[in-house]
Amino acid sequence: MARDARGGTAQNEDFASWYTELVFKAGLVDRGPAKGTMVIRPYGYRLWELLQEELDRRIKDTGHENASFPLLIPESYLSREAEHVEGFSPELAVVTHAGGKELDEPLVVRPTSETVIGEMMSKWVASHRDLPLLLNQWANVVRWEMRPRMFLRTTEFLWQEGHTAHADADSAMRETTWALEMYSQVARDIAAMPVIAGEKTAGERFAGAASTFTIEGMMGDGRALQAGTSHYMATNFAEAFGITYAGEDGGSTLCHTTSWGMSTRMVGGVVLTHGDDRGLVLPPRLAPHQVVVVPIGKGDALARVEREAGDLAERLRRAGVRTHVDTRPQVSPGFKFNDWELKGVPIRLELGPRDLDSGTGVLVRRVGDEGKETVPLETLPERVPAVLDEFQAFLLRRATRFRDAHTVTVDEWTSFAEAVSTGWARAFHCGNAACEDDIKAHTAATPRCVPLDADAESGACVRCGAAADYDKRVVFGRAY
Amino acid sequence: MARDARGGTAQNEDFASWYTELVFKAGLVDRGPAKGTMVIRPYGYRLWELLQEELDRRIKDTGHENASFPLLIPESYLSREAEHVEGFSPELAVVTHAGGKELDEPLVVRPTSETVIGEMMSKWVASHRDLPLLLNQWANVVRWEMRPRMFLRTTEFLWQEGHTAHADADSAMRETTWALEMYSQVARDIAAMPVIAGEKTAGERFAGAASTFTIEGMMGDGRALQAGTSHYMATNFAEAFGITYAGEDGGSTLCHTTSWGMSTRMVGGVVLTHGDDRGLVLPPRLAPHQVVVVPIGKGDALARVEREAGDLAERLRRAGVRTHVDTRPQVSPGFKFNDWELKGVPIRLELGPRDLDSGTGVLVRRVGDEGKETVPLETLPERVPAVLDEFQAFLLRRATRFRDAHTVTVDEWTSFAEAVSTGWARAFHCGNAACEDDIKAHTAATPRCVPLDADAESGACVRCGAAADYDKRVVFGRAY
Repeated sequence: MARDARGGTAQNEDFASWYTELVFKAGLVDRGPAKGTMVIRPYGYRLWELLQEELDRRIKDTGHENASFPLLIPESYLSREAEHVEGFSPELAVVTHAGGKELDEPLVVRPTSETVIGEMMSKWVASHRDLPLLLNQWANVVRWEMRPRMFLRTTEFLWQEGHTAHADADSAMRETTWALEMYSQVARDIAAMPVIAGEKTAGERFAGAASTFTIEGMMGDGRALQAGTSHYMATNFAEAFGITYAGEDGGSTLCHTTSWGMSTRMVGGVVLTHGDDRGLVLPPRLAPHQVVVVPIGKGDALARVEREAGDLAERLRRAGVRTHVDTRPQVSPGFKFNDWELKGVPIRLELGPRDLDSGTGVLVRRVGDEGKETVPLETLPERVPAVLDEFQAFLLRRATRFRDAHTVTVDEWTSFAEAVSTGWARAFHCGNAACEDDIKAHTAATPRCVPLDADAESGACVRCGAAADYDKRVVFGRAY
Repeated sequence: MARDARGGTAQNEDFASWYTELVFKAGLVDRGPAKGTMVIRPYGYRLWELLQEELDRRIKDTGHENASFPLLIPESYLSREAEHVEGFSPELAVVTHAGGKELDEPLVVRPTSETVIGEMMSKWVASHRDLPLLLNQWANVVRWEMRPRMFLRTTEFLWQEGHTAHADADSAMRETTWALEMYSQVARDIAAMPVIAGEKTAGERFAGAASTFTIEGMMGDGRALQAGTSHYMATNFAEAFGITYAGEDGGSTLCHTTSWGMSTRMVGGVVLTHGDDRGLVLPPRLAPHQVVVVPIGKGDALARVEREAGDLAERLRRAGVRTHVDTRPQVSPGFKFNDWELKGVPIRLELGPRDLDSGTGVLVRRVGDEGKETVPLETLPERVPAVLDEFQAFLLRRATRFRDAHTVTVDEWTSFAEAVSTGWARAFHCGNAACEDDIKAHTAATPRCVPLDADAESGACVRCGAAADYDKRVVFGRAY
């Protein structure tokens, strides 16, 4: 089997090992001391911060306000919504002692915040004038994981969780759809992940939701990653926590609520979507360094190159490009090239004494067909932003081609099983939970979503032959 | 006793009740369900976000990188540093069960992160080239509080915690001093709090630190608020966690570490420093709305005023002013005036039909001697930023005058006791812990700090008469 240039596992050898080795080697993450926890290292955290900025701006621009709710929630709160407690109980971390004493009532470390926010909403909502109530929280949550994987499934993760209350179902459903569309845009335009947006089947719904929507991305091994979810709760949590308002007629009416979240899992999604055997490949919009300048030379010549590199970096920064100059004296240019390829930097600029003499530099893209390109230094502040835009678009095109090449429309079982072994199958399904379980048992594939934008069609279930329960084909795939 | 206009407790009646009522009434905070926890509502959270931006920029500009470390820490980690565990044990919240099972080793919810970050530093630092290692984390921490007070002492709070490792004591001490100075600047220039920076006496040191530095602000009742701390750990945590590096000679050398933090307590500090009986008074740099425009009128005239107010707000926003237009139809202009005074908005702009005819508006500052001012609408985008700057400077001047008027240099006990009943005393102290305790028992005052910028002086302890242990006067006061 092929080993990659860095001595690690190659993608086609063992994709899962490739991923785990890479997130450590590239300095994104480290293992925390408690089971399944992670330390997000500065390079990985910066990526998350850049994603946060994009999400936070969109959330605020649409009238949502950030707030902060408690980490520790009385255990009894979860029980107020029957499905919610059933879904989350197995994953809870529980504080039983505090301040040197056993607590009268244990506190759970929040696995999500519908309950405590529901309780507060019931205090804050009085009349229809308080609605819609549009809240968001940036927070850590804890869900005890049996099979943790860095970024994808960790005991603690970071996310934003939007929670909103509305006067009626229409308004709440518009909010649910807005969040889903916002996630699709961020995934596509920022992370260069061409996700499919759709509704989850009943078996895959959030615990306590009336309907759950998801965006699903296809990773480099053909598996699906649920990259963001948006839930319409109907009046389930409003009933459990008493979130009501006095209508214009004075009567007390239950609110309809929603919640929606995107998490540090997206960092893993970026790695799994774009990475290759040489390392990460970062979309420019999320790259901590969009350009790394590597000065080449020795002695006085190097000093001159480094000065020029510093000036050039300053001009690039003024043009809005996140630029880093690698002046480490103890390692060679070749080592630096490999290192920044491992770290997925979109553009490398090589600068040597002869380049300076001719007023040019060598621009190298992390991936693509263009190869090395000699460029006039003077024009770089205009040229680089354009190259970054092209690079961002290239990654999205490449990922879209890959996804489409690994998505098959199938009508019979053998083709279905084959399709989900390397990608996704679009197939009719009866909607029966037992049939879903049967498919999963035989292929490890699950219904990822009923795509919102698919054409209406009808047919026979690909597994059992019964009439399809959805008016369109369902996307099936193995999932992270 | 006087009741304020809003029917709440007046400052001079009961300052503590005034504070607690105000943070709820102004919509900054609500009580969380678990003991001592708080919900930071959007208005309070926005204030915190604006402070975060200021801190985060300064932290990043000086080469520190953000990262994220686990919330849950194995209990045994804390025990590795003897003073640290002794200091924090009584305040710990402990997870004993997770995933439906009892854990082999309990996990503590981080009260601070020296231990887990120390463990990671020991993995990440190998050679002197890895130093200094400059990390920062934005996080929530939990310390079980017996007497919680919103923002000031809550079971969970939000903060940034900087953690750095250095090759030697000098470098670590420069870092400790840098953080303290950064906090002083942010407190003074952003929060308009004229803090005193100094070193804590031994009895007030952080558990595990070799020296602790603090900024102390004087609140509106003369009490001191510790508003930010910076600790030099010497090699205490490096020894406990094995943070060492290979020097140029190849030998293994212990690092010197620091940590420093500022928290949501600052939101309480802003309320306690500037607020009055009419409500909050916010420094413009931290005000969610710097200007609120209140349109006045009825029917068609009001519609016209609201259009103009919208245009004006847009021009103010383009000039960088955070502007809100209050168009609530259900409440009167008078109600709005009171409401925004309660919420501490620096500038109110009243706009009515006659104002429009004359092309002017009425500008009202939340506090100050200027009174109402009629201003041409056209010049407002230039005028308002200048007024905000003046207002910010006014608050700092006012708070500085107040602090200076309530700080007394004393040399004998009666004057000391009198001084600390309404403010601070600058006095000589023997440095004896028992004498500190005695002072506290009699006056409730503690040594707040030994100010860095005070002149060198010597004298006899204000309490016991022994020779002063510090080469300058110590600031004493009652503290939050």
